[in-house]
Amino acid sequence: MNLIEISAVKALEMMDKGELTSEIYVQAFLDRIKKREPLVGAWTFIEPELALKQARLADKRRVNKKGGVLNGLPIGVKDIIDTKDMPTENGSSFHKGRQPIEDAHLIKLLRDAGAIIMGKCVTTEFALSAPGKTKNPNDLECTPGGSSSGSAAAVCDNMVPLAIGSQTGGSVLRPASYTGILGLKPTFGTISRSGMSAISQRLDHPGIYANTPDDIKLVASVILSYDPKDLDMDSNYIFKNQAISNPSPKFAFIKGPVWSFGDKDMQEEIEKFVANFPMEIETIELGSDFKEAAKTHEIIMNGSISRSLLDYYNTNKSKLHPFTVNRIEAGIPVSAKDYIDALENAKKMKQTLTNVFKKFDAIITPAAPGQAPRDLMNTGSAIFNGYWTMMGVPAISLPLLAGKEGLPIGVQVITSWNKEAELIDISNLIIEKM
Amino acid sequence: MNLIEISAVKALEMMDKGELTSEIYVQAFLDRIKKREPLVGAWTFIEPELALKQARLADKRRVNKKGGVLNGLPIGVKDIIDTKDMPTENGSSFHKGRQPIEDAHLIKLLRDAGAIIMGKCVTTEFALSAPGKTKNPNDLECTPGGSSSGSAAAVCDNMVPLAIGSQTGGSVLRPASYTGILGLKPTFGTISRSGMSAISQRLDHPGIYANTPDDIKLVASVILSYDPKDLDMDSNYIFKNQAISNPSPKFAFIKGPVWSFGDKDMQEEIEKFVANFPMEIETIELGSDFKEAAKTHEIIMNGSISRSLLDYYNTNKSKLHPFTVNRIEAGIPVSAKDYIDALENAKKMKQTLTNVFKKFDAIITPAAPGQAPRDLMNTGSAIFNGYWTMMGVPAISLPLLAGKEGLPIGVQVITSWNKEAELIDISNLIIEKM
Repeated sequence: MNLIEISAVKALEMMDKGELTSEIYVQAFLDRIKKREPLVGAWTFIEPELALKQARLADKRRVNKKGGVLNGLPIGVKDIIDTKDMPTENGSSFHKGRQPIEDAHLIKLLRDAGAIIMGKCVTTEFALSAPGKTKNPNDLECTPGGSSSGSAAAVCDNMVPLAIGSQTGGSVLRPASYTGILGLKPTFGTISRSGMSAISQRLDHPGIYANTPDDIKLVASVILSYDPKDLDMDSNYIFKNQAISNPSPKFAFIKGPVWSFGDKDMQEEIEKFVANFPMEIETIELGSDFKEAAKTHEIIMNGSISRSLLDYYNTNKSKLHPFTVNRIEAGIPVSAKDYIDALENAKKMKQTLTNVFKKFDAIITPAAPGQAPRDLMNTGSAIFNGYWTMMGVPAISLPLLAGKEGLPIGVQVITSWNKEAELIDISNLIIEKM
Repeated sequence: MNLIEISAVKALEMMDKGELTSEIYVQAFLDRIKKREPLVGAWTFIEPELALKQARLADKRRVNKKGGVLNGLPIGVKDIIDTKDMPTENGSSFHKGRQPIEDAHLIKLLRDAGAIIMGKCVTTEFALSAPGKTKNPNDLECTPGGSSSGSAAAVCDNMVPLAIGSQTGGSVLRPASYTGILGLKPTFGTISRSGMSAISQRLDHPGIYANTPDDIKLVASVILSYDPKDLDMDSNYIFKNQAISNPSPKFAFIKGPVWSFGDKDMQEEIEKFVANFPMEIETIELGSDFKEAAKTHEIIMNGSISRSLLDYYNTNKSKLHPFTVNRIEAGIPVSAKDYIDALENAKKMKQTLTNVFKKFDAIITPAAPGQAPRDLMNTGSAIFNGYWTMMGVPAISLPLLAGKEGLPIGVQVITSWNKEAELIDISNLIIEKM
């Protein structure tokens, strides 16, 4: 048995039975990292001894029957999320060597549940589009996607079974699609962003990478938890490990307003997928409310970028990548009027979507325009994700398609608000039946 | 007994007992309007026969035991709320003679409950600060306040027992304070704005005028009702005629960050009021989060005005009052960044306020800087209301103070979100005990 290939859930079982220690498990991943990291470049910070120290403590807790639900499991964390024992550089030369004094809220939750913070994963500059060093493990000439490049690549390459990313446009789902792993962005406001570098309070969503739906659920059960410091969270929300409410879920296939931005191979593959779909599925469209959906997302995102990064721009523009400068400069002229227009349009779209979920349990739609671009300077387009991010609904990418060169393409599956547990169960169902 | 002086609740009782008909009741108000309207100028549209026709229908319904909870009661409506049988001019020369083809949602609710739409009440231009013809019935040289000038003046002058206004800054509470009546602005998102001229989706709140808390409650029980067409409403909200949960409510007196904008007579009067307050009260402050509260409200409001009125401005600026032009021109340069900053600051303030309501059942604070200005061109300042409007909490003005010339000044009472029924009961308690 190759330890780095088993699921996190399986590893936990083995640890609980005394067949595996966290130290041995973590060491297996460290060996993999040592071998592969020079090629893949998934990490901005990794210190084997720091990871092993945490693993040994987890093993002690297990002996004393004390560990939480993630006890002894290593997890990679996107380097825009503060860690008190590792630098957090936000992919920016402004933050070279920056050492937070406190853990982000979600890191505290992970540690409290016994997780091993394995290291920090490469992010694009400030989680926008200027790429870091990471390559796609499936083909080192291809981008892993962004902005959660390192998190996705690390899970794809079996350097870690679990990782945390974040999405403002398509930064969780697109890298999942390009690397061929699972990436979940749960409902807006279910994971705290306090201690995480912000692009947009309206759009930023942390997310989870893993290789199986159950591994994702395990992490979700820990980090989907109310934090009063994040002012956009709902204090009443509780993540339930609920089974799907409908044992025969009904699916809607939605090409969406951006279908024409998709590559031909992706379009053909997903249409074939839908034609062979083993459950009830109907092709529908979202209608005219969604015509400007991508543009609306772009206005909210650009307006927000001008707010979150303006100080860096004003301080020293030359320390920002030209891609980042372009995004900030696109945001500066966005007026309050444009921004309010966009917010109001998004509200209308949410209402339309509410009606879709009265008829359907889940939506199937592309996760990315196609397979990973063969271009390390281009992290690809978020056009198939941004407007769903703006809706705030839970979305997952499942690695079920392949592109013209055999590289993975994801299928995006979406459920209604606060139904991430159902989405995970539906993902299991799809994977089992396909 | 002078019919125009009894409460709406009392009139209903009399009608139910067969001691009064709606026709006689409405006629009494029409007589009052005939006599006083040339002096007060509260109405933009009033057609006695149209009101009487509705009254006769209400009387028929009563005979057939069919009328709703407002059956036969006349109500005045601010002229930014669409009515299918009366023009709705929004106080604007752009809309002279404009005849909507459909009732606003809240008008439908009023009619369904049997209310008589008495006529349309004067509003400032587009519910901003350019005044209409209305004078303060207490002193015809003084402003009635704005923007719900006619609605407040009509109730004050016993031209109608009930009226509807709206508030984006202080347009319900300030006119209530200046005219010496009760004005309630319930929780944000509890009354539909569909069919109402908009300034700001984020700030616009319809409100209710009457002479007693129970009359306000009667109208609230009808119009606080979910409407999917207003995208900011909460579908789960239900107005409950609940009694106050705490029979000995605890009050906080808050001078607030704008105290220094108050007139000396108001400041002295409300401090005396608090010193003699017959229930438990503690003076507290809101702290540094609220330092920029008034400015934050202004940014959201001005940014919104530039959106809602820009088309009129671009079409023909000269048809707008200079006061309105100034507001639009103040809003045009507001950037998405400024607007998002303001939204985020407001969220922080809401959280701080949440903590206040963990200790206190209600807040006492000024409703206006002082008595009505002796200036018909100046509708007064909303500075004591705007930041509470931005919080979205229910607020009422109670006519409990008098200014240096004996003109009324209101006390603003505020409860936590969705507790308008409690606020009304608390208002009764305060009035009884003072």
